[in-house]
Amino acid sequence: MKKAKKEINAAILVIGNEILSGRTQDLNVSFISNWLNLKCGIKVEEVRIVPDIEKKIVFNVLDLSKKFNYVFTTGGIGPTHDDITAKSISKAFKVKYEYNKEAYKILEKYYGAKQFNLGRKKMAKMPFGSSLIFNPSSAAPGFKIKNVLCLPGVPSILKSMMENLKKFLIKGSVTFSKTINLYTVESNISLEMEKIQKKYLKIIDIGSYPFFRLGKIGVSVVLRSKSKKKLKLCMNEIRKMIEAKKIEIFKKN
Amino acid sequence: MKKAKKEINAAILVIGNEILSGRTQDLNVSFISNWLNLKCGIKVEEVRIVPDIEKKIVFNVLDLSKKFNYVFTTGGIGPTHDDITAKSISKAFKVKYEYNKEAYKILEKYYGAKQFNLGRKKMAKMPFGSSLIFNPSSAAPGFKIKNVLCLPGVPSILKSMMENLKKFLIKGSVTFSKTINLYTVESNISLEMEKIQKKYLKIIDIGSYPFFRLGKIGVSVVLRSKSKKKLKLCMNEIRKMIEAKKIEIFKKN
Repeated sequence: MKKAKKEINAAILVIGNEILSGRTQDLNVSFISNWLNLKCGIKVEEVRIVPDIEKKIVFNVLDLSKKFNYVFTTGGIGPTHDDITAKSISKAFKVKYEYNKEAYKILEKYYGAKQFNLGRKKMAKMPFGSSLIFNPSSAAPGFKIKNVLCLPGVPSILKSMMENLKKFLIKGSVTFSKTINLYTVESNISLEMEKIQKKYLKIIDIGSYPFFRLGKIGVSVVLRSKSKKKLKLCMNEIRKMIEAKKIEIFKKN
Repeated sequence: MKKAKKEINAAILVIGNEILSGRTQDLNVSFISNWLNLKCGIKVEEVRIVPDIEKKIVFNVLDLSKKFNYVFTTGGIGPTHDDITAKSISKAFKVKYEYNKEAYKILEKYYGAKQFNLGRKKMAKMPFGSSLIFNPSSAAPGFKIKNVLCLPGVPSILKSMMENLKKFLIKGSVTFSKTINLYTVESNISLEMEKIQKKYLKIIDIGSYPFFRLGKIGVSVVLRSKSKKKLKLCMNEIRKMIEAKKIEIFKKN
C-alpha cells in the first residue's frame, strides 16, 4: 500500500431496502470504518443508506465519488433481481455493464460448468474496466471502478475480502485515540471539557458519550488525534480536572 | 394522529463522530424505521450519517427536509461541547438559537435550581419556534421545527420518547410484509424470483437475503406491499415454485 502524508477520506454507501426498512441491522459500517482507520489511515466522513432503486444509486455514487477520496458500497452484488449495484454503477459512469472475463472464469470454476446458471453468471457482470476484489469465502468478486469499491452486504463475506482491498488504497495518516470512562454525567463536566476542546481545537477531537453499566450512569470521553504526543498532553489535563472534581474512573477488566 | 391516504416518507440523519468512526454501533436507524412503518405507516427512504460539523449538519438538514416529508435526527442534543445539533439547525432555518421557556422549566424542575448548571441549561436551548418532544426518561426534551424532529442518540432514551412523536406526524398507509425462509442459495431461485417480481412490479417489493444458520446456508425471501391481498397471491406463487424445485422451508420456532 502506497502512503500519502495527507489525510485520506472516504464515504460508505449502503445499498439495500432491508437495512432501510429496519428488517436487517447494518453491521458493516462500523466494521469498515474501524478497519479503514486502523489498517489504512482512511477516515470515513459520511455514510448514506439508500434503497435498491437505480436512480438513487446513480445519484449517490456520483455525488460521493466527487466529494471523497474513496467510496465503499455494500450490498446489491448477488445473483437476484434486487441486486442492481453493478448495473447502476455502470450507468453512473456511463460504461458498459458486461461480463468480466476474469470474474466469469472464477465463478465457472467455483460452481462447475453444469451448475453455472444464469443467476450465477450475473455475478460476473460488472462495469467495463473494473478491477476485481477477490472473495476467498464465496468466490463472487467485488469490483473497483474509478474511486468506487463495491463489496457484498453479507458481513462474513465482506470481512473475508477486506485484505484484498489494500492494493487499491493509498494509506493516509492514522488517527490515534484514547478513552477514559467516568462515573459521572455529561453535564457535570461539560464546561471544563469545552475549555479543553477549545485549547486543542483542530488538533484533538474530543467526544463525550453517555453509557449505562451495571445500573450506574457514566460518560466515555474519547480523544482522537493524528498526534500521539498531543493526545497524551490533553489526557493529562483531563485527568487533572477529574481529580479536582473527585470523579471516579471506571476501569475495564 | 391524522391519517393521509398517500404514502408518507422520511429520512433519518444520524449526527455523531462516534458512529462514523465505528466506535459506536448505531442501533437507532433500524428501531426508528421499524417503528415508523408499523406505528405510523411512514417509510424511511434514506439515511445519512454525518460528523459533528456544523456546515455538514446545516447542508444535510436542509437537503433532506426538502426531499422528504419528515426528517428525524439522532444525536448531538446533550450538554457537551460536541452537541451542536440544535445550534446547527437554528442556523439551517435562519432562526435564533435560544432558551425555550418550557424546556428550561422542565429541566430546572428535574435538576433542582441549585444543580441546574450551564451545561444542563444548554439542553434548553433550541431553534426559535420549536415544539418540544417530551422525554419521560431523562427530562431533556427533543424538539420539532418545520418537518425536522430531533431526538437524542442514546437508544434507551430515544425509545422512551417515540410515543411523544405521534402527535406531530401524519399517518401514511402501512406496508405489510411476509417472509419465507428457504434452505437454498439465491442463485438457485433468482430467475424464478425475477419473473415473479416483474409480474408484481410496483405492487410488491421482493427482496432476497442470504443467511447462515446452524451451519446451513439459506435465503430469506421478503415480500413488502401496501396490499395484503396481493401479498397473499404472490406468496402462493412463490410457494408453488418452491414445491416444484423441492426446496426445504425453514420454520422458525
